[in-house]
Amino acid sequence: MRSVGIIGLGHVGMTTAFNLLAQKVCDKLILIENNQVRADAEYLDLVDGQSAVTPTCQIIMNDYAALKTADVVIFAAGQGDSTDDGDRNSEMKTTKKAVDEVAPLLIASGFKGVLVNISNPCDVITAYWQEILQLPSNQVIGTGTMLDTNRMRRGVAQALGLNTADVQGFNMGEHGESQFTAWSTVTLLNQNQATLETLDKVDLETKARAGGWTIYEGKHYTNYGIAMVALVLIRAILSDSGATFSLSYFDPEMRTYIGHPAKIGHRGIMAPVKVALTSTEQAKYQASADYIQTNFEKLKLL
Amino acid sequence: MRSVGIIGLGHVGMTTAFNLLAQKVCDKLILIENNQVRADAEYLDLVDGQSAVTPTCQIIMNDYAALKTADVVIFAAGQGDSTDDGDRNSEMKTTKKAVDEVAPLLIASGFKGVLVNISNPCDVITAYWQEILQLPSNQVIGTGTMLDTNRMRRGVAQALGLNTADVQGFNMGEHGESQFTAWSTVTLLNQNQATLETLDKVDLETKARAGGWTIYEGKHYTNYGIAMVALVLIRAILSDSGATFSLSYFDPEMRTYIGHPAKIGHRGIMAPVKVALTSTEQAKYQASADYIQTNFEKLKLL
Amino acid sequence: MRSVGIIGLGHVGMTTAFNLLAQKVCDKLILIENNQVRADAEYLDLVDGQSAVTPTCQIIMNDYAALKTADVVIFAAGQGDSTDDGDRNSEMKTTKKAVDEVAPLLIASGFKGVLVNISNPCDVITAYWQEILQLPSNQVIGTGTMLDTNRMRRGVAQALGLNTADVQGFNMGEHGESQFTAWSTVTLLNQNQATLETLDKVDLETKARAGGWTIYEGKHYTNYGIAMVALVLIRAILSDSGATFSLSYFDPEMRTYIGHPAKIGHRGIMAPVKVALTSTEQAKYQASADYIQTNFEKLKLL
Amino acid sequence: MRSVGIIGLGHVGMTTAFNLLAQKVCDKLILIENNQVRADAEYLDLVDGQSAVTPTCQIIMNDYAALKTADVVIFAAGQGDSTDDGDRNSEMKTTKKAVDEVAPLLIASGFKGVLVNISNPCDVITAYWQEILQLPSNQVIGTGTMLDTNRMRRGVAQALGLNTADVQGFNMGEHGESQFTAWSTVTLLNQNQATLETLDKVDLETKARAGGWTIYEGKHYTNYGIAMVALVLIRAILSDSGATFSLSYFDPEMRTYIGHPAKIGHRGIMAPVKVALTSTEQAKYQASADYIQTNFEKLKLL
Repeated sequence: MRSVGIIGLGHVGMTTAFNLLAQKVCDKLILIENNQVRADAEYLDLVDGQSAVTPTCQIIMNDYAALKTADVVIFAAGQGDSTDDGDRNSEMKTTKKAVDEVAPLLIASGFKGVLVNISNPCDVITAYWQEILQLPSNQVIGTGTMLDTNRMRRGVAQALGLNTADVQGFNMGEHGESQFTAWSTVTLLNQNQATLETLDKVDLETKARAGGWTIYEGKHYTNYGIAMVALVLIRAILSDSGATFSLSYFDPEMRTYIGHPAKIGHRGIMAPVKVALTSTEQAKYQASADYIQTNFEKLKLL
Repeated sequence: MRSVGIIGLGHVGMTTAFNLLAQKVCDKLILIENNQVRADAEYLDLVDGQSAVTPTCQIIMNDYAALKTADVVIFAAGQGDSTDDGDRNSEMKTTKKAVDEVAPLLIASGFKGVLVNISNPCDVITAYWQEILQLPSNQVIGTGTMLDTNRMRRGVAQALGLNTADVQGFNMGEHGESQFTAWSTVTLLNQNQATLETLDKVDLETKARAGGWTIYEGKHYTNYGIAMVALVLIRAILSDSGATFSLSYFDPEMRTYIGHPAKIGHRGIMAPVKVALTSTEQAKYQASADYIQTNFEKLKLL
Repeated sequence: MRSVGIIGLGHVGMTTAFNLLAQKVCDKLILIENNQVRADAEYLDLVDGQSAVTPTCQIIMNDYAALKTADVVIFAAGQGDSTDDGDRNSEMKTTKKAVDEVAPLLIASGFKGVLVNISNPCDVITAYWQEILQLPSNQVIGTGTMLDTNRMRRGVAQALGLNTADVQGFNMGEHGESQFTAWSTVTLLNQNQATLETLDKVDLETKARAGGWTIYEGKHYTNYGIAMVALVLIRAILSDSGATFSLSYFDPEMRTYIGHPAKIGHRGIMAPVKVALTSTEQAKYQASADYIQTNFEKLKLL
Repeated sequence: MRSVGIIGLGHVGMTTAFNLLAQKVCDKLILIENNQVRADAEYLDLVDGQSAVTPTCQIIMNDYAALKTADVVIFAAGQGDSTDDGDRNSEMKTTKKAVDEVAPLLIASGFKGVLVNISNPCDVITAYWQEILQLPSNQVIGTGTMLDTNRMRRGVAQALGLNTADVQGFNMGEHGESQFTAWSTVTLLNQNQATLETLDKVDLETKARAGGWTIYEGKHYTNYGIAMVALVLIRAILSDSGATFSLSYFDPEMRTYIGHPAKIGHRGIMAPVKVALTSTEQAKYQASADYIQTNFEKLKLL
């Protein structure tokens, strides 16, 4: 049976929950939300949704004990992706507080699966989770630059009149301002790669990085992009797929959590994926790692 | 190709849009929203979502001309289901204004498909749409008591320890306070029907009717239940399925739009479904029809 | 993680496997087929299919040890549903032999999930499985009259111009000639139930019972109907759904495996569902039970 | 509404039909099969399958008139992919005869959509279809090297321990012995591309080319790989997706139908995709084109 937990029922958590239900991805969905009134309302709305089709998922509310056997737990509490404001660190304090509240309960449940952190600032919060949880570091990951990578691929696809699925490559570094597009990793399925050289890379990179901010300005939160990222990642974890994504996980060379590619499987990080960055890209990666480390030290002082 | 339009990108419209995309239900999704900043933000968030998988749907923003060939248009503007407040009429004025703005543009597009109204007060707004649009009345329908019906089925299922799919029957009348559960139509797949007699029907009926209100209190809008209703209905229309749902459409005997069962197909209402109500139920139906008519007269005076 | 095993890769087993893969229902699919050449070919064909999309399921071939943690194992060896010939018992000997070969290996694997038998004669083979396996009887079930029930529902729907989903009720008894439609359980969602009285019930019952035979005559096996039954059943088991189906499981009053309704969950039979048969129906049920028992005695002598 | 026709209900046609139904891809499925007994049996088996879920697709049998409004027609008659025997031309005569029988009826229907030919020898049969049909050449395409491409990607992925989705590139040329892997187009998502140099390319290319033959030896037909190719292609056509696949379509330079990449949309070929082949690859492409042309001349003499 597929058992998925979601902690924090803001826009991100709830859109993820609904998407998992609607696409029949899991058999047991354990939802944790400390605002009980909202939890009750969201539960009723979800089961209304299930009632329109043949329900094939149990929904369990605010029962930490049920997380014991969860394959994956999504952490989307704090302000989630909701203040994707160009400087995601502003929400550090709120999110850290949420981790501090939740972590002892999650540990007490005996949870032994993969924790996927979505909440921002993603890299440092994931690192903090890893420090607190008594789980191997491969089992504690952040969505990090996975969403940014998708934004970059879409931007390139749009510029060249392609389908997004036909553009590959990675954004790397912090899920924040210091990230970068690793252009040396970008490939096009259906074109002489030289076409890439015609692109305004600075503009594309800026748009990928600022994508969340643009959405935030218009609707005050983001949810659909990250909810699909969560679903794709959950499927990869559940099926031990070995697919590669750019995610936030521990880089021993950089000695920090940071967005870089990994093969994903049922234990989280199956294997790191080494990419041969150019020296310029490597410098950006280092700078981003430094920034995350500084931020992590700030978080520890909160 | 399946082409679906959604007018109004509030919580209901957007959740419906996301669900259609995520489940690959349509090939062309035409989204209309007069708040351009929000429209831009929602577009970006949706295409971020699509970028996580292989995109197989075109998303077209604020282009009424594209509605010409839409199979179905969902109207979710005004306040949608968002003030499901026990007296859905409070939003009559806002929604009527939205219809008045949008209808000439929809007519001008040459739209010839099925209009599905979700916005409240659902029955009178649907009736108003039918009056304005130059389309046969079978092509103008409201979701009406379809969601309430699902809520009733879920309540019964929960009370008896069944799966919701194994309870059938209808809520009928207004999508509002004057609705009722037509208990004479309720059947259980897997039980001696006598089990139904053990239920606290008044409580179940109250909860089905008040379901939206409870959710509204907790989260200030409802979206997941109605978004799944919309998807199920769209599938039935697209495939000319002949499935039966309790929906708001014109009842010539009552001379009003009102929630009652119909077989649904690619032209909207394929055929009315006559149910043999008890005299008590018939009286409730008449009272609900009267209430809707009175409300419709109020709307016309706005 | 969802882990499903399929033993026997004939048309039924393979169509089920493909359907599970295509709909992303499971994370691990363990396929057992003693014809190694065919096993290799089917494996390659399936992974070719997966290669057209993003693979999210591991396919494991002929590894009994992997069945240890399977949630469900489908048994479709012997001749499966392939000689649905009006007297399904002709294949008793072949199928019994397949069970005898396979059962010790399945037991040795440490399998602790739900065994779903599809192979014919379904009721006696399921009973035989239950006798051999060291599992509680609720975990050993046969698809039995689930397919026949669907055929009856479709026949009724077609006769009345309804969608099949709007007809409910059960076929019961043997998955074979002695089965019957329990008309007292049949309900229509969207009609005065009196409409049922207009139907040619004898004809509908005959067609439901003979449905497999008609297909067999035309294509020499059946696979699509039973493969969808398997998928629906697997989803219900995985999600502990409590949905009700007419299946072959042990009836202590009749002292035999026989098709009758049950609520299904993650341990197989969650609870029997008592239906109030008419005396005529009860007599048919008894006769069918007697027939199955006689057959089971024959099987034991093989 | 999505309307898909399938001509020829052998293993390929039927597996495609079932997959479209099970995944709710289309609203109308028009099936053509001149063996009426088998057509009847397959129809019953498919509707049995639909009866296990809520049916949302009309199935129409042997009605050419219904093809008038089909978006896509799949041609899988003749022997389909069923004698993928290393020299697919052996079935040329049988398939040509099937085209000769069917084409006048398809033309008479007024069909104006996209014809996708699966039947072998794929390239020459597609060319023949284009000659007969009064449709623009972009609307007549063959699955060609799309399946071979997937086989190559899987082979590379397996050799490197990757998920197939993370390998891109094309097989090109004839869907037959003279095809080749265009290694210059192959990219890995998640590796330094240099890893490709460690591969035994001759072996991988041979396996991709011979993939169908291996399956054919083991099971006497192939169906799952090609059925998923058909589904992916149908989705891309219906949604005007602009995704790129290696397909058989007319190359004006080579003056023949041949497998090479194109962007796919609702009118079939949306645009050719120019790939910069190495001179060795270009020579293979030319040789394959010559072989197809010779074969096409043979076909014309039959």
